[in-house]
Amino acid sequence: MVVREEVRKMKSVAPLVAGLSNEKRCNALILIADRLEEKKEEIFIENKKDLDFAAQNGVAESIVKRLKFDEGKLRDVVAGIKQLISLEDPIGKLTLHRELDTDLILKRITCPIGVIGIIFEARPDALVQISTLCIRSGNCPVLKGGKETTNTNRILFNIIYEAVLEAGFPEGCMLAVEQHNEIDELLKCEGLVDLLIPRGSNAFVRYIMDNTHIPVMGHADGICHIYVDEWADIDTAIKVILDAKTQYTAACNAVETLLINRNQLLIKNFIPRLIEALAENGIKLRGTSEITALADEFYKNHPVNTEADNSENVNQKLDYETIDESEFKEYLSLIVSARFVDNLDEAADFINQHGSHHTDCIITSSDDNADRFMQLVDSAGVYRNCSTRFADGFRYGFGAEVGISTSKIHARGPVGLEGLVTYKYMLTGRGHIVGEYASGQKSFHHKDLL
Amino acid sequence: MVVREEVRKMKSVAPLVAGLSNEKRCNALILIADRLEEKKEEIFIENKKDLDFAAQNGVAESIVKRLKFDEGKLRDVVAGIKQLISLEDPIGKLTLHRELDTDLILKRITCPIGVIGIIFEARPDALVQISTLCIRSGNCPVLKGGKETTNTNRILFNIIYEAVLEAGFPEGCMLAVEQHNEIDELLKCEGLVDLLIPRGSNAFVRYIMDNTHIPVMGHADGICHIYVDEWADIDTAIKVILDAKTQYTAACNAVETLLINRNQLLIKNFIPRLIEALAENGIKLRGTSEITALADEFYKNHPVNTEADNSENVNQKLDYETIDESEFKEYLSLIVSARFVDNLDEAADFINQHGSHHTDCIITSSDDNADRFMQLVDSAGVYRNCSTRFADGFRYGFGAEVGISTSKIHARGPVGLEGLVTYKYMLTGRGHIVGEYASGQKSFHHKDLL
Repeated sequence: MVVREEVRKMKSVAPLVAGLSNEKRCNALILIADRLEEKKEEIFIENKKDLDFAAQNGVAESIVKRLKFDEGKLRDVVAGIKQLISLEDPIGKLTLHRELDTDLILKRITCPIGVIGIIFEARPDALVQISTLCIRSGNCPVLKGGKETTNTNRILFNIIYEAVLEAGFPEGCMLAVEQHNEIDELLKCEGLVDLLIPRGSNAFVRYIMDNTHIPVMGHADGICHIYVDEWADIDTAIKVILDAKTQYTAACNAVETLLINRNQLLIKNFIPRLIEALAENGIKLRGTSEITALADEFYKNHPVNTEADNSENVNQKLDYETIDESEFKEYLSLIVSARFVDNLDEAADFINQHGSHHTDCIITSSDDNADRFMQLVDSAGVYRNCSTRFADGFRYGFGAEVGISTSKIHARGPVGLEGLVTYKYMLTGRGHIVGEYASGQKSFHHKDLL
Repeated sequence: MVVREEVRKMKSVAPLVAGLSNEKRCNALILIADRLEEKKEEIFIENKKDLDFAAQNGVAESIVKRLKFDEGKLRDVVAGIKQLISLEDPIGKLTLHRELDTDLILKRITCPIGVIGIIFEARPDALVQISTLCIRSGNCPVLKGGKETTNTNRILFNIIYEAVLEAGFPEGCMLAVEQHNEIDELLKCEGLVDLLIPRGSNAFVRYIMDNTHIPVMGHADGICHIYVDEWADIDTAIKVILDAKTQYTAACNAVETLLINRNQLLIKNFIPRLIEALAENGIKLRGTSEITALADEFYKNHPVNTEADNSENVNQKLDYETIDESEFKEYLSLIVSARFVDNLDEAADFINQHGSHHTDCIITSSDDNADRFMQLVDSAGVYRNCSTRFADGFRYGFGAEVGISTSKIHARGPVGLEGLVTYKYMLTGRGHIVGEYASGQKSFHHKDLL
């Protein structure tokens, strides 16, 4: 397949898709949900091929879990489609309505972005979510999924594409790309593809960003911080840190760095609790020398219990090492970095300089400190007293997400329907010309009608 | 000056500027307006240096007109500042307020983008407009103006910067770059500069886009079309075409291409009127052979009157030449391209494929045709029966503009205050963790509070 030619056709079909009614787009989604359920046995057969191939090639269990498309996953994607149908139509919203002068009327109306290229990991449910988000928002997707799910992706794409054609969408409104080398062709489709959304490893996303002139939405790193303030409630701190680190370690919104206020009382009460909690959960601590010195001291006073039960001893020893803060990074595993900060402002500044502007959290009981942190930290998500793992389109109530954006341009954070629309200005006159305004013969009165 | 170091300092100052109150930002604008008026004689002296230099170096009259900063320009920029003060604060707007679950509250709040690099043409009034838009929206601008206005830019920058410091803005919140080679340094400040807005020639904007990983907002080409529909009112068509072509030929929103419906009645009534109007206004026509054949025929029937008055003759001959439609381009002068189209859909398709997605217009008395055109044409501005020259921030009532965007991402069309903001998600819990939702122990209820 010559990607460029297919995408060129899609570009000329895109305005037709943009003009389809809300009813037609919703009907397409209903058909998709029906067809997926009707053809589930065929889908499971194709999925088994991918699973068998993965087993033969010794693919890790954690990846196989994501490849699997079973009754449970089907139920989830169908529920997701039904949620999408229930959401307000993002297209055709009047966001500005202004009379510039008599009979010269300006409207700003939301409309689809057009052609969107999405390159995503080996997860068949992602294909369904991304396609249906695009269909609901009147966009034309070019889809490239992970190669480990080629068979499942192919049948899912065919079912969805046939359903949208049946619903009255024009031919060529969706495109599947299967070969990895076709990604490079796609990157060169400047002027035809309006937006690229890459998902996957840090290195992969950076490769996309560095090799195209098409706008890219997404995130490379996910280095999320939790700042434990001097006014932190210690139970809350421990509970949130453990969830943010362990609930799903490979996620971009898992915590990677702890910043701890250098308050003496906090150190006395919080550090031993943290050491025990990390040890019990098998989390390795990579801390600055100040932090690890406290761990050394802790184990001097509380030897590890190797034989009988002893209340003065502890049961598990923390795995820890001393590093410099320049070595802090994204682990995506059971490792966490830690250092002290003198105050909240230093924490915010450290996050702004070393974070990835994804999601960062303060643990505090002080409203003033929370407000200041949430104001100063320049991230898509700024949290108080809750896990960074909440940064997710479904959890925010967006139905699903095409990705999470750490960019400040266009869309930020989890990107659902709203991030998939743009707008156009429509101006209607009765032979109005600028010359009459430039000469002072007429003047604007700018009366808002909305 | 090492640009990167200065920009790094600005980056750490940006969250403080973002946190300044609306009152403080408005007070800064009031001070700027006052200081500009108080120090106008000093400004005019510096401006005379630039004008003298231009005169000595034989700079074209049209450019000198833009370099000039006189009482009239001062009055305009001060009026612009007052309009900016009167506009609603774009910062801190609550655009989403949702209870995800009991005590787990999500807010989405508008906030400044941060550090914005703006490279603009030699127009001192542009420096004032751009700076004040950034100040009103809580952003930190890095400003590089055209070298022909170095002296005027320097004094204007100093007056504005001193005024914002006096108003309580932090040091380093604004930066002026004077050397052309420093632009390349600025392009490398990925991660420090959040957005670049280049204004100027097509080639220059393209150079910026091709040489940075920082998001770029703006437009390279401005190839605007007027489609004369079969239901066009001919007087309206002639009036709008002349304004769109002649009112300011060097503007990006001037019309460059005419698409004319191949309806026989329209050809009979409209083409002779067009030929006469273009000839009278000294506009050269570059048309396809079908178009120029009609001009040949016209002059066969209406010879040019070289001597006495004669009602059968015409007074001026149109300058025209036959070209292929692949030669249509942006002229920015008194030249216009023209071709026929079979119908409205062909016109829309031609515009989508050959235009620059800036501003395109239909001349028609048919509501249905206008609606279809405005739906199908994929441009930032889609107009009916009015001049493309209206595409402008001031005329839309945005106070001013930092530029016009032909991108579909983030902001489209004239970019005023709204295009200079982004948002952040703020989530507040009471120790909420994802684990409890993943296990089914708790569930989201997503109740909108707005």
